[in-house]
Amino acid sequence: MPGRLIGVGVGPGAPDLVTLRAARVIGAAEVVAYPALPGTGSFARSIVADLVPDGAEEIVIEVPMTRDRAPAQAAYDVAAERISAVLEGGRDVVVLCEGDPFFYGSFMYLHARLSGGFACEVVPGVTSLTACAAVAGRPIVARDERLTVLPGPLPDEVLRERIAGAEAVAILKVGRHLARIRSVIAGLGLTERAVYVERASLPEQVVLPLFEAPARAPYFSMILLTKGGDPWL
Amino acid sequence: MPGRLIGVGVGPGAPDLVTLRAARVIGAAEVVAYPALPGTGSFARSIVADLVPDGAEEIVIEVPMTRDRAPAQAAYDVAAERISAVLEGGRDVVVLCEGDPFFYGSFMYLHARLSGGFACEVVPGVTSLTACAAVAGRPIVARDERLTVLPGPLPDEVLRERIAGAEAVAILKVGRHLARIRSVIAGLGLTERAVYVERASLPEQVVLPLFEAPARAPYFSMILLTKGGDPWL
Repeated sequence: MPGRLIGVGVGPGAPDLVTLRAARVIGAAEVVAYPALPGTGSFARSIVADLVPDGAEEIVIEVPMTRDRAPAQAAYDVAAERISAVLEGGRDVVVLCEGDPFFYGSFMYLHARLSGGFACEVVPGVTSLTACAAVAGRPIVARDERLTVLPGPLPDEVLRERIAGAEAVAILKVGRHLARIRSVIAGLGLTERAVYVERASLPEQVVLPLFEAPARAPYFSMILLTKGGDPWL
Repeated sequence: MPGRLIGVGVGPGAPDLVTLRAARVIGAAEVVAYPALPGTGSFARSIVADLVPDGAEEIVIEVPMTRDRAPAQAAYDVAAERISAVLEGGRDVVVLCEGDPFFYGSFMYLHARLSGGFACEVVPGVTSLTACAAVAGRPIVARDERLTVLPGPLPDEVLRERIAGAEAVAILKVGRHLARIRSVIAGLGLTERAVYVERASLPEQVVLPLFEAPARAPYFSMILLTKGGDPWL
């Protein structure tokens, strides 16, 4: 029997925002895999450092941070081959994923390569979306409101059109696009409706009205924008 | 010192998709509050039945299911007064919320009434959105894709326009709107891209291609629709 590929969402960053299921699956893992960035290591693994068993085999997926996607995809090709060999040998591989594996997660690159040949399971996790809302004390959507989730790297005109047409907006992966996104939101007259959050749920988290946001934002930052409506009704 | 209002997301339904933090907060609760529907009781409480302490005081918010919102809002008025009295007495109140408190959660009705006067905390939870994707084995969004989340009760023309303009769509609260939503999706030629999920993560969960979905859907059902893109890149 080949092993199973198990993508496990470890949540937004606080170790206690891991689910009971994720904690159990990680704690029982023989083999864990996770992406790591050059220099900063693996955020996903750091979240569950206390849960990974001492004797577990660890497959580190070193992901080069280049604008060209080819080097990163080559890294996933290599990782998929290595994971494939473990699965064929009959052992499960637990892939650690920041947030949720299927919500802007790099787990998808492994899923695309391996789910055709092996049994695959996903343990959903708390996303940065709801973690940011929680620490900001800002409800995202209620009743029949529509939500639009937009990655920050999208071009201005796409952001502008999408923000204008939505009732609630979350802009993820703000990072180096902060100044540009801020201009788009200001142009729509919505700055006072927006809150900026970075590293939600971690000790170093930042929560500020958008107009007080710092000049530089890390990759793990988000802008939440809600246009209102009466929350009482 | 007045107590704190603590909204706790208990996830989509499986008891082990509760976070470690939620389990700890609920396990230490002196007073818990939760909505309950006439006849079916409280879904939120059923998820964490094993975690609520035996001696905890329980505030049941009986929510009438009427199209007119006034009776439900009157129920939240009454509940907010009762919770307010507990908070003023110096005890925390833990409010149990299906999924995540700020993602289409009824917790917002209490938050709107009480957060001005009392300290408020939110423990984010796994949403039905990522739980449905997990059980369907369907990535939702990657890279720079946009996601639109739409409640099923929205009118046809809004659904049509929003689905046409999005790359990935989740339609929540499908329930009695299923046939109508299915027609909208068929009209856009997207039926084969859509999956139907009900009661994700519960033993009675259903996962089907949309064209095989049952004639009747429960309130806790969802349609996920992804238009593709190459998941390898």
